[in-house]
Amino acid sequence: MGRRRAAIVGAGHTRFGVLPATPRELLCQAVDAAVASVDRGFERALVGEAFLGTLGFSGWQLGNASAVLAEEAGLVGVPVTRVENACASAGFALRHAALAIQSGERDVVLAVGFEKMNDTTSTRRRYWLGVSGDTEWERLSGLTFAGVYGLMAGRYLHDYDCPPEALAEVAVKNHANGALNPNAQFQKPVSREKVLAAPRVATPLGLFDCCPVSDGAAALLLVGEEMAHRFTDTPVYVAGLGAGSDRLALQERESMTSLKATQIAAKEAFRRAGFERSSVQFLEVHDCFTIAELLAIEDLGFAEPGRAGALTLEGATRLHGRLPVNPDGGLKAKGHPIGATGASQAYEAFVQLRGAAGARQVPHAERALTHNVGGSGASATVSLFSIQ
Amino acid sequence: MGRRRAAIVGAGHTRFGVLPATPRELLCQAVDAAVASVDRGFERALVGEAFLGTLGFSGWQLGNASAVLAEEAGLVGVPVTRVENACASAGFALRHAALAIQSGERDVVLAVGFEKMNDTTSTRRRYWLGVSGDTEWERLSGLTFAGVYGLMAGRYLHDYDCPPEALAEVAVKNHANGALNPNAQFQKPVSREKVLAAPRVATPLGLFDCCPVSDGAAALLLVGEEMAHRFTDTPVYVAGLGAGSDRLALQERESMTSLKATQIAAKEAFRRAGFERSSVQFLEVHDCFTIAELLAIEDLGFAEPGRAGALTLEGATRLHGRLPVNPDGGLKAKGHPIGATGASQAYEAFVQLRGAAGARQVPHAERALTHNVGGSGASATVSLFSIQ
Repeated sequence: MGRRRAAIVGAGHTRFGVLPATPRELLCQAVDAAVASVDRGFERALVGEAFLGTLGFSGWQLGNASAVLAEEAGLVGVPVTRVENACASAGFALRHAALAIQSGERDVVLAVGFEKMNDTTSTRRRYWLGVSGDTEWERLSGLTFAGVYGLMAGRYLHDYDCPPEALAEVAVKNHANGALNPNAQFQKPVSREKVLAAPRVATPLGLFDCCPVSDGAAALLLVGEEMAHRFTDTPVYVAGLGAGSDRLALQERESMTSLKATQIAAKEAFRRAGFERSSVQFLEVHDCFTIAELLAIEDLGFAEPGRAGALTLEGATRLHGRLPVNPDGGLKAKGHPIGATGASQAYEAFVQLRGAAGARQVPHAERALTHNVGGSGASATVSLFSIQ
Repeated sequence: MGRRRAAIVGAGHTRFGVLPATPRELLCQAVDAAVASVDRGFERALVGEAFLGTLGFSGWQLGNASAVLAEEAGLVGVPVTRVENACASAGFALRHAALAIQSGERDVVLAVGFEKMNDTTSTRRRYWLGVSGDTEWERLSGLTFAGVYGLMAGRYLHDYDCPPEALAEVAVKNHANGALNPNAQFQKPVSREKVLAAPRVATPLGLFDCCPVSDGAAALLLVGEEMAHRFTDTPVYVAGLGAGSDRLALQERESMTSLKATQIAAKEAFRRAGFERSSVQFLEVHDCFTIAELLAIEDLGFAEPGRAGALTLEGATRLHGRLPVNPDGGLKAKGHPIGATGASQAYEAFVQLRGAAGARQVPHAERALTHNVGGSGASATVSLFSIQ
């Protein structure tokens, strides 16, 4: 309150998917698109600091990737910080980009999220995914991320007597939304029958309950709110930021059916923003697996524990439902290039709140929430955006 | 100016060296020591956010290490961000910790730097060190970090007609200082003759021109300046922060005998702090190799290009010289656990400016500069500290 807010004035997004582009090309494409998206008067020489969210998947440039961003974004000389909080890397990168503006330290900041996952073998990919899980217990027992979320899903269905159709409906909805998003990895609707009949990956989760392996990048340009109208008539403001953490291993947590890090982050973000949940028109949540979307809706405070399944089956979270969730297709259909996701979610908030989302536009969207999770809930960010 | 400054009220430091401690134990030790070092009224429940600088060396917990810090520091629930800018990881972690306070977002923030390097084979260690160099050219041509700095040293000696004794004197001085530091990896003086006669690693750099492979951690507790006196009568203020970047590969840079990232960072830090170089009593610079200390003295603006060798040979940079450099022994003798170094340097500033550095105390120290470099100069931070 009373602090200088950050405003987004430009955003860029590559296609997500199995892409021929190299890491450097992906970074370039996202940043160039963000710069080109600013309505007027912008040049990259204005950027005073940058943040890069990436897991460094496949070890392409495991250390010092920030310098590569400086090179590819035409920002040599400008400080760049690599932030790594597993799948929440870009959510945290965005957080610190906004704080760099809020602190008065910088006027113009670039936040980029990025991952290149499809340049290694599937065996090595399993290793690279595993590095964000708990090393000492989960990896020791061979537990993959699908395995961890499978345990959470099994418990959730049991505790709340929730039908598996609720999970399937998350996939159906997100694939339907993805079909309207030209950047999505999957742009094809799927039927509930197909989802339910698919091979199991980690019971009760099947193939269509899991997000894909994706390449991609997204970039955001943030400025101090007082200068936003120099660049556009329609800036989108960062209204509130929240973040939290939890224990790394699922077995150490208080609950298997809620993420405490999300709860903490959401509470803080709404306190900072000073508005109510009821004034938010849509959510971008971290649906790395279908169960994760149900947990997120509850942990963010938009449904009572155990009620998100029914809400989903009623159609409330569809694009034209009363609370659209993941209008861009979510991690499920849009894809989940690990370090890119938090920035991609903010891109969607930016585009939707400006009414520029085309076929997937959420009607009358003035406030949006994005939610990014690291690992299976070890960390989370929640960001609130508004047009005023 | 006029912004809320961050003040350091506590700092902890493990021994640096080849340690039996596990990564979790090292994190614990540094944080516990920092908490215990606060003079009064502190409890870890006050910490609102934390930053962890680490390269993630040896892949122990490559992703999501931030959650491990939350667990080991007793901060589960609190947002933790892992920052990775190679050897400058903790310098950048400290920067963002200070900005989180400057922004008004947090009142109490923990910054930790950490690395466990001695838990893998020397072949794998070479890999892990290599990941922070330029992947596409330097690694392709088999260039190690000693090789990169060897090229810089060769060029420097040639261009400025500097005698190799100047490099040796950096090692002699830093080993002498390390002998007075109970946390240093090497606590034994060396003679100039021994340094000059040692086996070459990457000509003109010999064994004693190179920092060792180290385990260790350091932690800092920062608070908003208005609350600093609640915790201590002798806080140390973060007076100015600066940061910069450069191209990743040496061959792409404008100069082989200066680091532009350091120059940019220093210029900014002094501008923010509002005081002159002449009012700083000592420097903690990033001497990963002896040549790096000479370059730093020049790039930071404390000597003209090519003059740092003579300054060193005159004894000006010794503990009781007119501008002490690396009173703690520097990376050279104290050790260089990659992600820990930036935090360790700030620890030294804190201890020295409070007059608590014992045998290695710099007389009348009221202002100090710390300088942390990522890779061979791809990024750098400069931080200025003062007692007022």
